[in-house]
Amino acid sequence: ARPRVGYFYTGKTGAQLLTENLNKIFVRDYQSLPVVVNENISVYDAIVSVFLEDVGTLYVVDENSHLVGVLSRKDLLRASIGKQELSALPVNIIMTRMPNITYCEKDDMLIDVAKKLIDKQIDSLPVVKVTDQGLEVTGRITKTNITKAFVALVDGDL
Amino acid sequence: ARPRVGYFYTGKTGAQLLTENLNKIFVRDYQSLPVVVNENISVYDAIVSVFLEDVGTLYVVDENSHLVGVLSRKDLLRASIGKQELSALPVNIIMTRMPNITYCEKDDMLIDVAKKLIDKQIDSLPVVKVTDQGLEVTGRITKTNITKAFVALVDGDL
Repeated sequence: ARPRVGYFYTGKTGAQLLTENLNKIFVRDYQSLPVVVNENISVYDAIVSVFLEDVGTLYVVDENSHLVGVLSRKDLLRASIGKQELSALPVNIIMTRMPNITYCEKDDMLIDVAKKLIDKQIDSLPVVKVTDQGLEVTGRITKTNITKAFVALVDGDL
Repeated sequence: ARPRVGYFYTGKTGAQLLTENLNKIFVRDYQSLPVVVNENISVYDAIVSVFLEDVGTLYVVDENSHLVGVLSRKDLLRASIGKQELSALPVNIIMTRMPNITYCEKDDMLIDVAKKLIDKQIDSLPVVKVTDQGLEVTGRITKTNITKAFVALVDGDL
């Protein structure tokens, strides 16, 4: 019999191939390191951390290192035009608290996280490990990470 | 002769099809409206604008409505932990000025803008119309717009 060589139609369109490729990109492949602060630090110190660490969002943890809040640049800016003294104002007064924090896990698909960022109009999600005691923060996913994945798609790195 | 029906190999891989599709996405398809402020307003008023308009970056224009600067949330946060009175500090003291502003035009490819955002580590680019008199700001492209394009790719909207 004649050997089967060359290309064969697989029944897939370009869009389907793309979707398949995107469904193979996970949070763990694009996540960044999280920047975590204690819930008792001041807003002033949190703003300094934003600059030192060059991040848009800080994750706030309790004394057991479990996630209790999120501080966005917007939260910090809002506090900075308030009347309070920033060095005397603890971050747990102004942070977004559980259960209002949207998070993800390292094995989630990146595309699902991208949809959450758009739907909820937020800048980043903490990547957590869920334990019986609480949420351990292990990473962060930002629109920068999504933009990097978009660029990598074109460069053929995916 | 037998009619040529069915699928034929086009010589293109999934990656090539993807690249072709991405090269058809332009800035004009995903840009947002720009938020523009005058160079003489105070840092305090600029921070208020960030909240009222819910944007990450403000574009600063001169009396002829030409682009002269960019104010990021980071610029505003940095000023807010300084010693100056925010309502007495004009934005043109703290803004990033031309020629240090990276911009794009509406007919640029979105993927090229995505690469610039990553390479230069910035949050957004103004979309401008280049004239003999200067740059007219007509839009903005943020990582949110790029993330929306990423989601649309998968939903087959592109």
